Amino acid sequence: MKLRFTKMHGAGNDFVVINGIDQKIRFTPEQWRFLADRRFGIGADQILLVEKTTKKSADFRYRIFNADGGEVEQCGNGARAFVRFVTDQGMTDKHRIKVETMAGIIELQLEKNGNVTVNMGPPVFEPENVPFDTTGLRGHAEQRAMLWPLYFENDGQKGKNLMLSVLSMGNPHAVLLVDSTEKAPVAQEGPVIESHRRFPNRVNAGFMEIVDRNRIKLRVYERGAGETLACGTGACAAVVSGICRGLLDSPVNVMMAGGELLIAWEGEGNPVMMTGPAVRVFDGEINM
Amino acid sequence: MKLRFTKMHGAGNDFVVINGIDQKIRFTPEQWRFLADRRFGIGADQILLVEKTTKKSADFRYRIFNADGGEVEQCGNGARAFVRFVTDQGMTDKHRIKVETMAGIIELQLEKNGNVTVNMGPPVFEPENVPFDTTGLRGHAEQRAMLWPLYFENDGQKGKNLMLSVLSMGNPHAVLLVDSTEKAPVAQEGPVIESHRRFPNRVNAGFMEIVDRNRIKLRVYERGAGETLACGTGACAAVVSGICRGLLDSPVNVMMAGGELLIAWEGEGNPVMMTGPAVRVFDGEINM
Repeated sequence: MKLRFTKMHGAGNDFVVINGIDQKIRFTPEQWRFLADRRFGIGADQILLVEKTTKKSADFRYRIFNADGGEVEQCGNGARAFVRFVTDQGMTDKHRIKVETMAGIIELQLEKNGNVTVNMGPPVFEPENVPFDTTGLRGHAEQRAMLWPLYFENDGQKGKNLMLSVLSMGNPHAVLLVDSTEKAPVAQEGPVIESHRRFPNRVNAGFMEIVDRNRIKLRVYERGAGETLACGTGACAAVVSGICRGLLDSPVNVMMAGGELLIAWEGEGNPVMMTGPAVRVFDGEINM
Repeated sequence: MKLRFTKMHGAGNDFVVINGIDQKIRFTPEQWRFLADRRFGIGADQILLVEKTTKKSADFRYRIFNADGGEVEQCGNGARAFVRFVTDQGMTDKHRIKVETMAGIIELQLEKNGNVTVNMGPPVFEPENVPFDTTGLRGHAEQRAMLWPLYFENDGQKGKNLMLSVLSMGNPHAVLLVDSTEKAPVAQEGPVIESHRRFPNRVNAGFMEIVDRNRIKLRVYERGAGETLACGTGACAAVVSGICRGLLDSPVNVMMAGGELLIAWEGEGNPVMMTGPAVRVFDGEINM
């Protein structure tokens, strides 16, 4: 089949976006991997598939596939790209869009300047809902955020404990405070945190540097994708962690290698609101 | 302007190919860099621009831009992609095509199985024509290939001498023999060789492992692009170097991470013939 697609990015986090309503899509994990391959395929951090929803309370459904071929729950940058895609393509004329995802229904708002605000839902702290296995572990309560000491083996040699905030934004996150994102050992520690045995579904690892009470720098090692230039849910998780630790006030500007996001959160029980850009880069056709 | 392009690869070495005959193209180095950017642009090792030629003895002209925005002389994998592009697009019905490049006119042949054979011209050994500054240096003649001992500083500490074959295939190459391409320190030594002061136009650095007299493994650190999955002129330079050293017999199968090429060379004065695949991956349109 001839597959039409659009390449987009949100703060440098890039996506192949596919209209799965006009086109009948049934791909294998190998085919998702091929599409994400930057030399032999199209190339992207993730593939975003827009589908019809069966839910009355939603306008669309979307599914997200990682570069490793696996399906994941949620992606904040992807949500913004999704809104620009369905509005640019004339698939809807609404500016408020509700979309069904694996992580539930999320609400999206196209702003006048073309930015998109995403209601990311409230953060989830209960370990069993992250999921995060705390058996035999004692967390430290700081404000409402729990900080957990996790032990990491270091190539079979003596390991070390890292203090991590663990929460879910529809997908699991572990957030670590660092003095400098520039010097943070993301390539070394990212994959080790990602695959720690206490995260049965693995975890996204965020490395956060506090600049002031309304600004952070952030690097995220994403499950199945490695370090990306920006991670939307990672930005939310980091800001929630920082506010809970008493280090940040809402709203917070999150600076990542690929661009900036504005994250607002009014405290427990409230949803996290994320605002940022999404850019259509090019349209293409590929034989599958 | 709306720019139409085709994404292709030759043994994993990937290209954005642009028809510069139907479309008027005048891009800055920043724009070439944008097109080559894998997240914010289209993404490729190099951009290939097909143009009209003013030479009577040629059918087309093509120019090659590296991911760093600079123009380069020649690229064997690009030449194969070029042939598939102009024949697939119906820009010619010839199976033998002559094309003007910065390195002179080269001859290309579309084979029945879709592979492309490229007449890469004879290798150039004269140091001043590589260019390679041999002032005060004494090479070692092995058969007809000169081996040159080059001194490399190692982070200001004690350096080491590497024995390199230096030749030009339209672009400069330095070929190094290694016991194992898998273990070769390409990321460390590649950029150091690339920028050695004796190569005024820099140099492509090849790391060659001899498997038997008709097979080698090869990794190449390319000027301005870093290590690539395959390098056409690098494969030619490595095989010429191996034949001159008495280690290989023509034709030689060159195994690279991105795929295989067959290189034939009948000795001094003869052209190097390279045969391999070129794959059209997708077509696209981007606003510039």
